[in-house]
Amino acid sequence: MPSPSLLQEVVADAAPLLGGGKVADYIPELAKVPSQKLGIAVCTARDGVIGAGDYQEPFSIQSISKVFALVQTMGLYEERELWQRVGKEPSGNPFNSLVQLEFEKGVPRNPFINAGALVITDMLQTRLSAPRQRMLEMVRNLSGNEHIISDRTVAMSEYQHSARNAAIAYLMKSFGNFDNEVEQVLHTYFSHCAIRMSCADLARAFFFLCNKGASLDHRNVLSEKQNRQVNALLATSGLYDGSGEFAYRVGMPGKSGVGGGIIAVIPGEMSVCVWSPELDSSGNSLAGIAMLEQVSKRLGRSIF
Amino acid sequence: MPSPSLLQEVVADAAPLLGGGKVADYIPELAKVPSQKLGIAVCTARDGVIGAGDYQEPFSIQSISKVFALVQTMGLYEERELWQRVGKEPSGNPFNSLVQLEFEKGVPRNPFINAGALVITDMLQTRLSAPRQRMLEMVRNLSGNEHIISDRTVAMSEYQHSARNAAIAYLMKSFGNFDNEVEQVLHTYFSHCAIRMSCADLARAFFFLCNKGASLDHRNVLSEKQNRQVNALLATSGLYDGSGEFAYRVGMPGKSGVGGGIIAVIPGEMSVCVWSPELDSSGNSLAGIAMLEQVSKRLGRSIF
Amino acid sequence: MPSPSLLQEVVADAAPLLGGGKVADYIPELAKVPSQKLGIAVCTARDGVIGAGDYQEPFSIQSISKVFALVQTMGLYEERELWQRVGKEPSGNPFNSLVQLEFEKGVPRNPFINAGALVITDMLQTRLSAPRQRMLEMVRNLSGNEHIISDRTVAMSEYQHSARNAAIAYLMKSFGNFDNEVEQVLHTYFSHCAIRMSCADLARAFFFLCNKGASLDHRNVLSEKQNRQVNALLATSGLYDGSGEFAYRVGMPGKSGVGGGIIAVIPGEMSVCVWSPELDSSGNSLAGIAMLEQVSKRLGRSIF
Amino acid sequence: MPSPSLLQEVVADAAPLLGGGKVADYIPELAKVPSQKLGIAVCTARDGVIGAGDYQEPFSIQSISKVFALVQTMGLYEERELWQRVGKEPSGNPFNSLVQLEFEKGVPRNPFINAGALVITDMLQTRLSAPRQRMLEMVRNLSGNEHIISDRTVAMSEYQHSARNAAIAYLMKSFGNFDNEVEQVLHTYFSHCAIRMSCADLARAFFFLCNKGASLDHRNVLSEKQNRQVNALLATSGLYDGSGEFAYRVGMPGKSGVGGGIIAVIPGEMSVCVWSPELDSSGNSLAGIAMLEQVSKRLGRSIF
Repeated sequence: MPSPSLLQEVVADAAPLLGGGKVADYIPELAKVPSQKLGIAVCTARDGVIGAGDYQEPFSIQSISKVFALVQTMGLYEERELWQRVGKEPSGNPFNSLVQLEFEKGVPRNPFINAGALVITDMLQTRLSAPRQRMLEMVRNLSGNEHIISDRTVAMSEYQHSARNAAIAYLMKSFGNFDNEVEQVLHTYFSHCAIRMSCADLARAFFFLCNKGASLDHRNVLSEKQNRQVNALLATSGLYDGSGEFAYRVGMPGKSGVGGGIIAVIPGEMSVCVWSPELDSSGNSLAGIAMLEQVSKRLGRSIF
Repeated sequence: MPSPSLLQEVVADAAPLLGGGKVADYIPELAKVPSQKLGIAVCTARDGVIGAGDYQEPFSIQSISKVFALVQTMGLYEERELWQRVGKEPSGNPFNSLVQLEFEKGVPRNPFINAGALVITDMLQTRLSAPRQRMLEMVRNLSGNEHIISDRTVAMSEYQHSARNAAIAYLMKSFGNFDNEVEQVLHTYFSHCAIRMSCADLARAFFFLCNKGASLDHRNVLSEKQNRQVNALLATSGLYDGSGEFAYRVGMPGKSGVGGGIIAVIPGEMSVCVWSPELDSSGNSLAGIAMLEQVSKRLGRSIF
Repeated sequence: MPSPSLLQEVVADAAPLLGGGKVADYIPELAKVPSQKLGIAVCTARDGVIGAGDYQEPFSIQSISKVFALVQTMGLYEERELWQRVGKEPSGNPFNSLVQLEFEKGVPRNPFINAGALVITDMLQTRLSAPRQRMLEMVRNLSGNEHIISDRTVAMSEYQHSARNAAIAYLMKSFGNFDNEVEQVLHTYFSHCAIRMSCADLARAFFFLCNKGASLDHRNVLSEKQNRQVNALLATSGLYDGSGEFAYRVGMPGKSGVGGGIIAVIPGEMSVCVWSPELDSSGNSLAGIAMLEQVSKRLGRSIF
Repeated sequence: MPSPSLLQEVVADAAPLLGGGKVADYIPELAKVPSQKLGIAVCTARDGVIGAGDYQEPFSIQSISKVFALVQTMGLYEERELWQRVGKEPSGNPFNSLVQLEFEKGVPRNPFINAGALVITDMLQTRLSAPRQRMLEMVRNLSGNEHIISDRTVAMSEYQHSARNAAIAYLMKSFGNFDNEVEQVLHTYFSHCAIRMSCADLARAFFFLCNKGASLDHRNVLSEKQNRQVNALLATSGLYDGSGEFAYRVGMPGKSGVGGGIIAVIPGEMSVCVWSPELDSSGNSLAGIAMLEQVSKRLGRSIF
């Protein structure tokens, strides 16, 4: 079990990496985030959440929301329905490439690349009357934090720079794999991405992933089998084109976001969330990966 | 711990799948293998090897040899030297595609696609004076079976149908990522592929992968860290373009071969080898994956 | 010079081909066109238009409108401005592929693939206050037929099936190569495609291409140099992925549309328009190409 | 008709371009060629060859040999046999890309990219007992110069840097579109490329292309129809990925080589050959294209 002092050491060890990466700047709102942040939080059944550094400061969860969206969809659709619209394989290409999507007739490789998350959001849009509100309820319940919001300025800024995602959505529509209005789904998608949560919120919210699908307050978010499936997908595809490297260095299923957050789990033991806004060349948090590598090393934990 | 009767049930449950796949036929020698075979062997520290079905019958290990070759290379080269010549990421494309190799300047995505294994074999060729003999020694030592051989007829048949692998090797040579004569390396590569081992041999040989790098007779094949790294690569890239599906369904690091064998490990517990020659559309053993799925389900074991 | 009887023979010779191709059916409105049509018209300085078969029947000009749009753009922009937004090279891929567009950073290969025509339409949208009306004026003036209209039902039907073109436009927008609202430009684009003209109208309208840029009524549509440039682009890229075959068999600069029309020119001599709605596998009129091949053969004319 | 003084002006006008391109240096032997060369020769039925600048100096014809090889093949195979092994369409990609070749199942786009020329050479190897000698005979006869040789040092140097061409050939072999030994065909191919001819030799040798297939000494090299076909292929695919630009600027069927030569024809009038070793970014002679553009402009000749 990690102790607060161990987490403080992990943060201290990662501090020299600050300055070596690059804060996401494809939208002006994200570029404004101070780059010098470092936070880590761990959640276990025995101790609940402990943390170090900036672990209580909310940040834009961005693509980490794709895991929430997938989990929500697994509760609304049959397994068969879901996986005929999106695949389970690593993409092997930069995360927003259209080449593979065209080659594979509009079926995205997995739910964690943009194309896959857009299909998932399209499926939520079909079944939910107020998908943005339902997502907020989900993350508030899971994290036990009623103050979580989605940042409208960030969401709007992303929408205004969404030509590439629109292209992806229209391409899937041309293959018959997109049912709702593209603009509407993009708004929902960016609302999800713009949710602000802290490392503490996220470690708590994703505790179910290390607990056979059961949340801290003992609700079944996923079945045990579904939970293993989500972890498997995270392990093979959670860090874009850095998933293999992440497995090699860290050895935990995980998901990153361009806001600099990464969530990861050691099944049966703990959920972890790290945050540091500077990204490496694969779009993953530079110091975040280093902190997770240290956790893995110091605890002697890896799924491998 | 699996019992012999459990393994017999697993074999019996998989029998109805026979006839649903297709034996590899790209070389005449492989097409001759009887398709109705089903075998499974498990190796644990306590019980050694137990098995069911055709688990003592040798078969062509084919791409499973890529794991032995990688492990050998990790002992001969510095980590840095190795990974500048081959990547760690899933390929996201059919296993023999040249597109990605060209796009990425001759550096293969990982050591388990053909391009990656050819680079690895090129590296072995550079450092070893008799690479084919050294590979035989390795597999004989690890499995404790001195009678293991490489089938010359199969190796020669593969060499005579090696235009695509030659194209891959020459393409890497054109990018400066191939040092030896292409023909010579191909001969070594096919000699490795044509090694004949049984499920029992393979489960025993790969026991180190679930045992922190230490073989059954307590030799350190890999360091604990290297062992985790190999398992991570197997989990993300071991089953070609079916790696995500395999993680989702089975949840073990594994490696398949077109001869119908698959090896897999549950770290800390056991190594497993299954064999059934009929392949699915991704080139992996159809009944083999089903048997591993059953093992995972009945034992309640998965890394996720 | 072709005679009316020669044109009648050309039509008669092509009749047995009817039934061998496939009418475009990607939108319901186009699929309604009777497939058994055959028409040809030739325009020379001496004789004006002569024709045979269904040469006076209007049809949907579709991609033939891309030539009018390019010519209009050449009159509104400097040469340098135009060609930094679209290339001059054959595409070497099916006409609507996004792969190449992504690889080449949103700059389409040439003005005659959909991506290129969308950029051209975007440029017209920027400079013209009423681009649809201006296009109608242009084709009415050039053909001397005041009754030419754009079919609103066809245009609307195309708009409702425009997901792929929207994807292309948004992809270019994501690369900064698209200035106006995508929806607005698509409406203009489809209005151009839905213009209805007969072989006689088109042969007359494109007479300037064989006449050093001067129309039948002696207006300079293009400079002599610009005219050679347009013909060069038509020769290398006018028939999608069948341009090489068309040059090989027919040997005239030309442009096809999925409505079954093809216009072609013998510089210095004549413009030709053929029409037959059934298409070959490259999306070009099957009997139309055959008629042009016969014209080329019987007149002993080819630019090569 | 061009006069000697016009050609001298064309050479003088192109001189300021020297220094702006880059001599091919992928093999050491080609990099040794002095870069400051400029030559032009024109051949007409009335005047035979006239020239200016370095038009009598032999250089490495390189890919210009692909035209001779195609013409030879057209005399040895039925039209149908030939075009089922190689296409007629522009490649739309850099000249040595394997992507398209793999996508199109080992059938090269046209005879003028490397893959296409290798298939053509494979076909010659099958039908001719001494293909290198037969090629020398052909170019000696056509140019009336018995002293033409192939430079063995250049051919050997190219063979030693042929990994990429070997990859292309083996890829086609894997698709069943390559019959002979790869090494043997490569030797023949490089022997053709290493032929040394002057602008005068080449203008004379290719006179048949502007003369309905008949050589200066009245032999039928190609039928009139075949000749139009070759010119059509040159117009759409002769200058790699600069074919569209060449048609736009020059308007003549042509073929370039990395030795800096370009041959071109004005059907019915003349053949032209220019030479200047510095290449542009598409691999075509920078000053060579400029000289051809001047010829086209000053004579008012273009096929368009």
